[in-house]
Amino acid sequence: MSEDLTAVARFLFEAGTLKHSKRTGWWMAGVKDPESVADHSWRTALIATIIAKLEGADPGRAAFLAVWHDTGETRTGDVNHLGKKYTNGQADARDITADQVTGMPEVLARALRDVIAEYEEKESPEAVCARDADKLECMIQGVEYRDQGYVNAQRWIDNSRGRIVTKSGRALADAVLGTGSLDWLRAALGEK
Amino acid sequence: MSEDLTAVARFLFEAGTLKHSKRTGWWMAGVKDPESVADHSWRTALIATIIAKLEGADPGRAAFLAVWHDTGETRTGDVNHLGKKYTNGQADARDITADQVTGMPEVLARALRDVIAEYEEKESPEAVCARDADKLECMIQGVEYRDQGYVNAQRWIDNSRGRIVTKSGRALADAVLGTGSLDWLRAALGEK
Amino acid sequence: MSEDLTAVARFLFEAGTLKHSKRTGWWMAGVKDPESVADHSWRTALIATIIAKLEGADPGRAAFLAVWHDTGETRTGDVNHLGKKYTNGQADARDITADQVTGMPEVLARALRDVIAEYEEKESPEAVCARDADKLECMIQGVEYRDQGYVNAQRWIDNSRGRIVTKSGRALADAVLGTGSLDWLRAALGEK
Amino acid sequence: MSEDLTAVARFLFEAGTLKHSKRTGWWMAGVKDPESVADHSWRTALIATIIAKLEGADPGRAAFLAVWHDTGETRTGDVNHLGKKYTNGQADARDITADQVTGMPEVLARALRDVIAEYEEKESPEAVCARDADKLECMIQGVEYRDQGYVNAQRWIDNSRGRIVTKSGRALADAVLGTGSLDWLRAALGEK
Amino acid sequence: MSEDLTAVARFLFEAGTLKHSKRTGWWMAGVKDPESVADHSWRTALIATIIAKLEGADPGRAAFLAVWHDTGETRTGDVNHLGKKYTNGQADARDITADQVTGMPEVLARALRDVIAEYEEKESPEAVCARDADKLECMIQGVEYRDQGYVNAQRWIDNSRGRIVTKSGRALADAVLGTGSLDWLRAALGEK
Amino acid sequence: MSEDLTAVARFLFEAGTLKHSKRTGWWMAGVKDPESVADHSWRTALIATIIAKLEGADPGRAAFLAVWHDTGETRTGDVNHLGKKYTNGQADARDITADQVTGMPEVLARALRDVIAEYEEKESPEAVCARDADKLECMIQGVEYRDQGYVNAQRWIDNSRGRIVTKSGRALADAVLGTGSLDWLRAALGEK
Repeated sequence: MSEDLTAVARFLFEAGTLKHSKRTGWWMAGVKDPESVADHSWRTALIATIIAKLEGADPGRAAFLAVWHDTGETRTGDVNHLGKKYTNGQADARDITADQVTGMPEVLARALRDVIAEYEEKESPEAVCARDADKLECMIQGVEYRDQGYVNAQRWIDNSRGRIVTKSGRALADAVLGTGSLDWLRAALGEK
Repeated sequence: MSEDLTAVARFLFEAGTLKHSKRTGWWMAGVKDPESVADHSWRTALIATIIAKLEGADPGRAAFLAVWHDTGETRTGDVNHLGKKYTNGQADARDITADQVTGMPEVLARALRDVIAEYEEKESPEAVCARDADKLECMIQGVEYRDQGYVNAQRWIDNSRGRIVTKSGRALADAVLGTGSLDWLRAALGEK
Repeated sequence: MSEDLTAVARFLFEAGTLKHSKRTGWWMAGVKDPESVADHSWRTALIATIIAKLEGADPGRAAFLAVWHDTGETRTGDVNHLGKKYTNGQADARDITADQVTGMPEVLARALRDVIAEYEEKESPEAVCARDADKLECMIQGVEYRDQGYVNAQRWIDNSRGRIVTKSGRALADAVLGTGSLDWLRAALGEK
Repeated sequence: MSEDLTAVARFLFEAGTLKHSKRTGWWMAGVKDPESVADHSWRTALIATIIAKLEGADPGRAAFLAVWHDTGETRTGDVNHLGKKYTNGQADARDITADQVTGMPEVLARALRDVIAEYEEKESPEAVCARDADKLECMIQGVEYRDQGYVNAQRWIDNSRGRIVTKSGRALADAVLGTGSLDWLRAALGEK
Repeated sequence: MSEDLTAVARFLFEAGTLKHSKRTGWWMAGVKDPESVADHSWRTALIATIIAKLEGADPGRAAFLAVWHDTGETRTGDVNHLGKKYTNGQADARDITADQVTGMPEVLARALRDVIAEYEEKESPEAVCARDADKLECMIQGVEYRDQGYVNAQRWIDNSRGRIVTKSGRALADAVLGTGSLDWLRAALGEK
Repeated sequence: MSEDLTAVARFLFEAGTLKHSKRTGWWMAGVKDPESVADHSWRTALIATIIAKLEGADPGRAAFLAVWHDTGETRTGDVNHLGKKYTNGQADARDITADQVTGMPEVLARALRDVIAEYEEKESPEAVCARDADKLECMIQGVEYRDQGYVNAQRWIDNSRGRIVTKSGRALADAVLGTGSLDWLRAALGEK
């Protein structure tokens, strides 16, 4: 390992800020202390695994895309739809990744540029599944917030549901909407 | 999609509790509101990607293992080393996964059992990289907490560093320890 | 005071972690930042006082048992019912206390071992009252969370109510369920 | 149990607000999200037990006094020393207790009035021990906050130490100041 | 600038504690982590601007009064109505301001004493508007908390609404009660 | 008051989101739960009052500008310097205000457009003072975070200090840097 890993070390501290960064849309929904971008990215990866498997795509690849898909938000923040109305164009995640990997060993840098590019190009089956997972994760979080009392979360549930495109993603969304948020505990304890 | 996805839906709500579940060791270090298990799992997946790439293993597979490695903590909690001293044996993550996937489409259930089993068996190169990533993530978090003022975080830095086994993981740990936690911002702004 | 109090000092720092430790079941109920184990233990002691007085037992002794009853959770964490399914047996609080008091002046060590043993043995009237207080405290907290919007808190209300055994505890639970959570303020201001 | 327990139920909801009420002095020390009054009262009860046992007083009675000593803060808040400068006189806890117990079964009401009165009169050995515990608890919390990075916590450590009067309380304070806040974990793991 | 600004510097640190200080009434309403006094004062100033403009008073002056109206709470805390019942008289904000500005350049000190005095005297049109803004701000926050699930917030909505005295303040309160808390987002996105 | 105040009501709910919105730069400095935009705006208004008075400008007007200066962040979020690198141009606060006041009574709408325009044009003495207050507020918060243990806050202290332009602002900054963050309490208690 004679290569200099300083740029990698810097990136890992940079990534750490996404444990602090909140998904800012939830502030509008009334949630004072919402999930972090990291929290969201993690369950998105679980869901990407599942949708990809059900769709016959590569679950590991879909999870991999999901894990990395928001890493550019360390620099732009989680800018919502409303904010984009007031700027000319928005940041391209590929530009940010290019900056983030500068100085990393090239074999690694290339792999990271590739994973972000694949997600942004929205074409591979795994990218499509990971993007659906991003929406479905938001929908489930919305259901959870609604069950915690936030009445305005309904808007996020409806909007997210409407943006899911795969057959498996839609079926899974419907299953989620038909399942109580605490049913898992009852099932785990053998109550039903 | 004629299969019943209710068990999958239940699992996704179950997984959501790991956005709430704290990494409890940090309470001992004096951190009142520490990172969630989800936060930790997410950066672990980033690190697993990187270590695997540097080690010549499959980065996507390593990330995939890392994403899923703590999903059993929905049921056991994040039990620390000290607590294990007072029970006879500890939970086997494979038993928990077997319960969690009951009722899921079998093709999916098998994939999830496999990913947990691979991680627990500690033998594949990707499992080794993902396990190192788990330790390195804790070490970096320790550095961040120390830089936030928590003097007792040093213990976690030292313990985690000592448990990393791959050559790349060790080199990366050293690079992290030689890099300031805010150097990334200076570099990103072209200050140095 | 020529005795060495270092072991006592260590214990007081150890106990301090229960101000950070959350009652983890509430995470499942959707509460992101729930009460601490210390918060719970404190109101449990108030309730134990009251139930014991109403039952004709010693209120001070019951409060004393309640104050100390969760001190072993510094080592095991607040392991929930579901987690216990995956380990062989669970920690015995008396074993933990024995370790915690090692090195303390013997007169003190014995008193602490005795208070934990009395609670664990579930036989003295005061232990019975303190155990009921533990359940009733959880029920009241459930009502409070429900009134804060958490719909899933109902399960904890129902389960806790069902586990109360003393006549006074049951009567008090019924009174709580028939009283609004803000009635106290109206009464305090002379509104009714 | 033919008596009406509505007043007791109201009091238990009232007491619940002390899980939310912060010890406000810590805001001045720079702690944004400090311990609750309940958190503090709980460890105060542990410490009262210990000081009383070491002083040859009744540990259960001292714990009992400590548990109840701040219950009047549901109505006044945690008013600090500085605030008292601007009002003529301050609330008498006995007046508040008298209001809180109105409507409770008289046997219970009397017991609660007595416990508050004993604490406020500062004369019984147990009241003296409980009052020392109140100061020592604050001192230990100050040490913990200092070790979490809050430099201004030192003032609270010094002030609290200076107000402890019993021989055992002073000896225990010195032992705390000579013990690292994480030593307990090392000892628990058999490291030293 | 040859004058000594140390007293001003001290005051700015003192004022900073109101970012930490919570509006304590909300704890009673079940809100664990409510808004700060600073949060409240800020929107109060926005509202004071608006009511004053609609009433034909000076909007800048009203905003100015609102910004400063709670600066004395650094010393007294946010004492609620219930707490005032147990003390003889309450703090006069003018006394606190007099102490806070001691040592400041006299031209500045006089300006600050004047702004607090004007607010406390409740006579100028701008003071009346700012005081109404204080109530209306509380009412709106109550609506927001209710929409976040806190059922007991209704009391604060009703009480605040009833204490507003200006015609514009009352009309604005009615408009708020007739508007959904998320309508602004729909309007901003051109949905209606 | 026959005018429709619905647009005003909508704006007040919109403004309420700034009690939730965090000053995102602090996440980079390691602060997990930093001040809100509202918190910052409030103390900025206090400081604007003071700088304006010392500079011979209108303190009420400067406070007024400060109170309103960040109201556009309800739509853009608190975008930091780094994020601006990746978009073409940034939002103009005047465009946002124009949208926010649409539908308000015109006399009010004009006043709000004027206050934002004055701040953005950076020319009036009061705008200059308010802008300095914005920087000085950040510097003081940086000192407070540093005293809470966050070592990386130093960067924000230095950067903010360097951007203050008025003579009074600079003198006050120096006074702040020469004053301990808890000196105010000692002075308030007459200790020195």
